[in-house]
Amino acid sequence: MNNTISEGTYLLLLHGKRSWLIKVEKGKKVHTHLGIIDLDEAIGKEYGSYIESSLGKRVYLLKPLTYDVVMKSERRTQIVYPKDMGYIASRLGICSGMNVLEVGMGSGALTTFLAGIVKPEGRVYSYEMRDEFIPIARRNLSRLGLEPYVTIINKDASIGKLEVSSMDAAVIDVGDPWKVLDNVYDAMKGSAPLCAICPTMNQLERLSTSMKGRFVDLEFTELMIRHIEAREGMTRPVFRMVGHTTYLAFGRKVMHG
Amino acid sequence: MNNTISEGTYLLLLHGKRSWLIKVEKGKKVHTHLGIIDLDEAIGKEYGSYIESSLGKRVYLLKPLTYDVVMKSERRTQIVYPKDMGYIASRLGICSGMNVLEVGMGSGALTTFLAGIVKPEGRVYSYEMRDEFIPIARRNLSRLGLEPYVTIINKDASIGKLEVSSMDAAVIDVGDPWKVLDNVYDAMKGSAPLCAICPTMNQLERLSTSMKGRFVDLEFTELMIRHIEAREGMTRPVFRMVGHTTYLAFGRKVMHG
Amino acid sequence: MNNTISEGTYLLLLHGKRSWLIKVEKGKKVHTHLGIIDLDEAIGKEYGSYIESSLGKRVYLLKPLTYDVVMKSERRTQIVYPKDMGYIASRLGICSGMNVLEVGMGSGALTTFLAGIVKPEGRVYSYEMRDEFIPIARRNLSRLGLEPYVTIINKDASIGKLEVSSMDAAVIDVGDPWKVLDNVYDAMKGSAPLCAICPTMNQLERLSTSMKGRFVDLEFTELMIRHIEAREGMTRPVFRMVGHTTYLAFGRKVMHG
Amino acid sequence: MNNTISEGTYLLLLHGKRSWLIKVEKGKKVHTHLGIIDLDEAIGKEYGSYIESSLGKRVYLLKPLTYDVVMKSERRTQIVYPKDMGYIASRLGICSGMNVLEVGMGSGALTTFLAGIVKPEGRVYSYEMRDEFIPIARRNLSRLGLEPYVTIINKDASIGKLEVSSMDAAVIDVGDPWKVLDNVYDAMKGSAPLCAICPTMNQLERLSTSMKGRFVDLEFTELMIRHIEAREGMTRPVFRMVGHTTYLAFGRKVMHG
Repeated sequence: MNNTISEGTYLLLLHGKRSWLIKVEKGKKVHTHLGIIDLDEAIGKEYGSYIESSLGKRVYLLKPLTYDVVMKSERRTQIVYPKDMGYIASRLGICSGMNVLEVGMGSGALTTFLAGIVKPEGRVYSYEMRDEFIPIARRNLSRLGLEPYVTIINKDASIGKLEVSSMDAAVIDVGDPWKVLDNVYDAMKGSAPLCAICPTMNQLERLSTSMKGRFVDLEFTELMIRHIEAREGMTRPVFRMVGHTTYLAFGRKVMHG
Repeated sequence: MNNTISEGTYLLLLHGKRSWLIKVEKGKKVHTHLGIIDLDEAIGKEYGSYIESSLGKRVYLLKPLTYDVVMKSERRTQIVYPKDMGYIASRLGICSGMNVLEVGMGSGALTTFLAGIVKPEGRVYSYEMRDEFIPIARRNLSRLGLEPYVTIINKDASIGKLEVSSMDAAVIDVGDPWKVLDNVYDAMKGSAPLCAICPTMNQLERLSTSMKGRFVDLEFTELMIRHIEAREGMTRPVFRMVGHTTYLAFGRKVMHG
Repeated sequence: MNNTISEGTYLLLLHGKRSWLIKVEKGKKVHTHLGIIDLDEAIGKEYGSYIESSLGKRVYLLKPLTYDVVMKSERRTQIVYPKDMGYIASRLGICSGMNVLEVGMGSGALTTFLAGIVKPEGRVYSYEMRDEFIPIARRNLSRLGLEPYVTIINKDASIGKLEVSSMDAAVIDVGDPWKVLDNVYDAMKGSAPLCAICPTMNQLERLSTSMKGRFVDLEFTELMIRHIEAREGMTRPVFRMVGHTTYLAFGRKVMHG
Repeated sequence: MNNTISEGTYLLLLHGKRSWLIKVEKGKKVHTHLGIIDLDEAIGKEYGSYIESSLGKRVYLLKPLTYDVVMKSERRTQIVYPKDMGYIASRLGICSGMNVLEVGMGSGALTTFLAGIVKPEGRVYSYEMRDEFIPIARRNLSRLGLEPYVTIINKDASIGKLEVSSMDAAVIDVGDPWKVLDNVYDAMKGSAPLCAICPTMNQLERLSTSMKGRFVDLEFTELMIRHIEAREGMTRPVFRMVGHTTYLAFGRKVMHG
């Protein structure tokens, strides 16, 4: 029930549309366009309260969500966006306790979200062949203390056999998903659901061909998100929106016949 | 690691685009347009394998996901759709272990999805004033054994004070969300995230006014989902799509001042 | 200034969401679920007034627009939808007086719309190799007296050379647009705009490759239309919408070099 | 059949995604990031050919379309976008020869498009109460020689009665369309179609109430446009898109009863 800010945890500072994800440390000062924000003032305060910057601007003290870590993650790759991430969890029916295989961890945005769900009994097993992403992903996970629930395997998942088996669900986020499909299939439980992230139509088309016969309940989908300016008497969608992030391919493993 | 079908559990039978969510019982036979499906043949088989109907049609034996319970739920109200459900979980950063307040349980679709995430340590506390929905919601939850993680409170959440407090997140799904907003605010931890489901622009506009000053990081959003026919050389979005389910309003509780 | 209904012209009868496009003839009676509609009562009335069916239902007497002919056209093919048709006219800058080449007339929906714009000085030159569509297209055009502005050429436009030249704009609506592109290019004025209707991503991709080097200001586009239920205090987009009709490819002819 | 560039006409210079709408004059030089473009080199060339800038960049010489004038119009107001403009023409069935009433001309973008269609026999009658827009609109129209087909009336269309009557179609583009609806109704022929441009949901809702009983075949609509990057093996929608320009309200005038 404790909801007060303490040293060593992460904090989301928010003013209007701007926010900063920061580790709370004694004596730490954050320099922003709002002036200096003194973190000593935050320690001991309740989440949801506010302090003032040196220029007298109100800064809200928020408890970071997995959403914040995703949106603030160090990105060297295209991340999986919250709208897509949410639908993946919902369409795959991800529950606490599941063991989830992830091929292509990147900077660990989706990994963070999934680890927050499957803990404390479940695990995310993440393959990533590009060495440079491993420390980035670890840092993102550590912000919410989620490393214990993730096993990172620094390896090309298309070569040899995978180290894991009997996975309850699987997500593929690599440029050529059909290359890892055999290995992913073998590592999944019968009936387990799969999602592959396919930014282009060509990837989607080629993967769909590879999935046929081994996966059923196929769904190829795209989500669009649009924000609304809700204001008394002047409500309208915003002028600009994200037009496309990725297509998503779904299926469930069945036995060959 | 056991992945075989046993009596007393639920099973998703799938043939092409048609599926049935069924409790496995000895001697049970399902009559469909594919002929008779004999559940005795399924018992002991592995999930992901198939049996044949009396007319020789292949029927896949799938392990139900929370997604299936949502899509197959007995509906007397409009359900929350998977695309919206997923984004709610992602935007609110729902994790295993959280205590989530739900006002307006309806037939329990969203409840089922959230309970699958917050278990085993967290709980969903669901208010529903319409008596007739309680047994429907219970049945939906029971299909995946999720009742232990849900506390149902059969009461109008706009009257008196709520029984719960220090909630980590809250979701409102009633026709006049502004009426319960005071009570929901009081029951939330500082900084905790809120989502309200608002099918019409007018609800969204009115609620946005009520949220100002008490909630920050406001986001008013709509998600559209479009399926793709992915076929070698003929890939295109499908002709028909769902144009609108609901708007979603998001914010995080902050202290008045 | 005459706005009264006379024999021999077409009339749009409208009741609620239902409508009928009918030629006005003395003694003609239309049998509908509203009872019998007696066209004799319509003759001499002003457009925009109404008569009653034999069951006492109000039926509005409307003057057909090119839009109505398009929506009521005898269809044996997929028609070009009003949203796409409008953007084609707008993106190609179609004006009265232009000579427009159309390859793939089908049932003449787009032809009708374009002929209504380019008349009286301009012409639409429409190629259609499938004999059976010619009479359908002629009937559609004749409903608004637009045949004088359309020259139909019953021929495969990919074979030999086209009969026309110096076209001000061109539209291609055939399954393999790249096959006719050489001939269409040759028949267009320098700088003239082109649109090709491409239902699938694969057609779009292949055509885009063919267009490069010969066409500039390339645009590949898709339009989505969503209807809104505008009702006092309950305004929201409709539940169902059309998810996809076609992609559109645009460019302007330039000289090789 | 003459398709060569001459002095005194407008020309669209295009290089990649950049373009300039320029009046051709002897001795004129255009300074751009591509270096200097010497218009003397363009005179006498065929539309669709190219010249080179002083830095050796290829610049295509294109004949301006009404589309270009719209996109390059001097804007002091939000313009009507090509996607909306096209659907207005298509849904209202605008044909050459029609007399169209426009209330709220702004900078004349829609006026230009409509004038190009209704000429030579039809006219656009445009009301605009803000004096400062009149010269802007005139300049836009003059680029394609369309002033003879437009009558501008510098007046508030909500006051007194309109100068015009028996209009074949009408478009309203003012902030409070319900205020001019009586006058617009009176100026339209029976059965004539109407479109009102409503950027917000609130305008749409309020106008819909005003239209009931006097207009039938009501349609409230929104169009979304998304561009596609069509590239061999990498085809996908673009990341950014326009999320909203305006809602459109349609109806056809009927007699009260």
